[in-house]
Amino acid sequence: MLNISDLLIEKIQATNNPTVVGLDPRLEMIPEFIRNQAYETYGKNLKGASKALVAFNKALIDNIYDLIPAVKPQIAFYEQFGAEGIAAYIETIEYAKEKGLIIIGDIKRGDIATTAQAYGEGHIGTVDVEGEKFKVFKEDFITVNPYMGSDSISPYLEYCTSQQKGLFILVKTSNKGSGDIQDLLIGEQRIYEKVGQLVEEWGKETIGANDYSALGAVVGATYPEQLDILRKQMPHTFFLVPGYGAQGAGAKEVAGAFDKNGNGAIINSSRGIIAAYKAEKYKSKYSEKEFTEAAREEVIVMRDQLNKVRGL
Amino acid sequence: MLNISDLLIEKIQATNNPTVVGLDPRLEMIPEFIRNQAYETYGKNLKGASKALVAFNKALIDNIYDLIPAVKPQIAFYEQFGAEGIAAYIETIEYAKEKGLIIIGDIKRGDIATTAQAYGEGHIGTVDVEGEKFKVFKEDFITVNPYMGSDSISPYLEYCTSQQKGLFILVKTSNKGSGDIQDLLIGEQRIYEKVGQLVEEWGKETIGANDYSALGAVVGATYPEQLDILRKQMPHTFFLVPGYGAQGAGAKEVAGAFDKNGNGAIINSSRGIIAAYKAEKYKSKYSEKEFTEAAREEVIVMRDQLNKVRGL
Repeated sequence: MLNISDLLIEKIQATNNPTVVGLDPRLEMIPEFIRNQAYETYGKNLKGASKALVAFNKALIDNIYDLIPAVKPQIAFYEQFGAEGIAAYIETIEYAKEKGLIIIGDIKRGDIATTAQAYGEGHIGTVDVEGEKFKVFKEDFITVNPYMGSDSISPYLEYCTSQQKGLFILVKTSNKGSGDIQDLLIGEQRIYEKVGQLVEEWGKETIGANDYSALGAVVGATYPEQLDILRKQMPHTFFLVPGYGAQGAGAKEVAGAFDKNGNGAIINSSRGIIAAYKAEKYKSKYSEKEFTEAAREEVIVMRDQLNKVRGL
Repeated sequence: MLNISDLLIEKIQATNNPTVVGLDPRLEMIPEFIRNQAYETYGKNLKGASKALVAFNKALIDNIYDLIPAVKPQIAFYEQFGAEGIAAYIETIEYAKEKGLIIIGDIKRGDIATTAQAYGEGHIGTVDVEGEKFKVFKEDFITVNPYMGSDSISPYLEYCTSQQKGLFILVKTSNKGSGDIQDLLIGEQRIYEKVGQLVEEWGKETIGANDYSALGAVVGATYPEQLDILRKQMPHTFFLVPGYGAQGAGAKEVAGAFDKNGNGAIINSSRGIIAAYKAEKYKSKYSEKEFTEAAREEVIVMRDQLNKVRGL
């Protein structure tokens, strides 16, 4: 059976684009006409705000879904609005799935086994209410935090083998402070290298047709040297690479994330795409009403830059 | 101004009990009559299940709130039911707050600064919708994961200084696999000791009247030696200690968590209390209908055992 990494690779090949669009909307980046419409219907409250996120996301998805393999909603930007926000997160996922996109839920959970089991059931598995079965969040991948060790990861594995689901485990993150813990030296090895080694081990029973396991790794674009090292040390691990665009890295910085076939990584851009219409380079060309056009153009620019560095 | 650790210490003194009750309900531990009532009203679905959690929690809180300083709902057991589950989590918190309890939201979030900002606003701060302000989750403390470093923690600090909120940062967790990363040696120091040192540093601007900062640490009861070492190395850090009861540790194992005044730690028990009526020792004494009585008795047993080892 193909695993979720095989399906992701297929979709990257079909779109010829190794980009995942981060759906991390904040109210201030949503055009006023969308916000006002949501507030008129639902009020200036948590529901109105949540509905504005959904309307923004749907308009973006409608105009870029044919160009990209996947989206990555960051749950924090929905969760902050409470139950209404979570409903908006789920509605966004359902809409993106209808358009054929692969969903990477950026939830960064991590907890003891019984708790991980509950997250697993809800996010990538099945919730059982007295024999009635429910798929709740319906992500294809979720991001998880490895600090609590192997038994905080293993509860997710059954969904990776039986239900074509996957994880992206934090290894070397894109933020400035990532070095505080991840760069510490254990003997001759950095922590992130050790975690990378663990991810390779944890994933070995889930390797698919393309030689990648269902357990990917998050490796930031902002640390290109580490990206090169990890690519070599983790041959069976697909990379999710944040930090492109608004966080400062460009195509050159992420080149090392790809394998010799130009495969093995998906690069995330969030603000750079979804708020493209506010960027210096687009704001004279596109009005607020044309925000999805700016996003589409930026997706194409990014795709072409990435394809150059992955030799395609 | 008193910080949140001062308020927690006050409440521990008022109840003479350093126990936090983990509200981690799973459907199979909720008495049938409560579940059926919820299903009859809302259906055997995500809403029915979520409402069963709330009814179970409220009954427990009603019968133990006078004996305990705090509760710790584990968000995973609510989140798995989606938006309805999150509504149940929030309803539980609101109810517990009305009863004067301090709320430790066991959410274990951890992300880059802009994302941490969103979690902070939603969980311990204020969400702004076009100038309208909303308190959404209303926890007093949240648990957070340190793997991403200082800039994943700093966005929460403003709520610790301005709004009497606090964090419990994962240092040495109670699960078996915690050693995989946390026990690695950097020079002569274990990772968890290094993280402990960082927590002390990060918290130093938030130290309150009792010499504890608003940034606590999660240190598992299942590692009593490490608990002793960390207590000495982290004099300004309040400990949240999971692993008591169902996870195997007893009062002797957690003795080292307390400072010389019998202060400085709060010990969590979840299943051991909320599902006490199912335990061998209570199931012949209490019927399913009396589940809150069993919980109350177990709270008293645990309180007395803890007070013995903390010399009170």
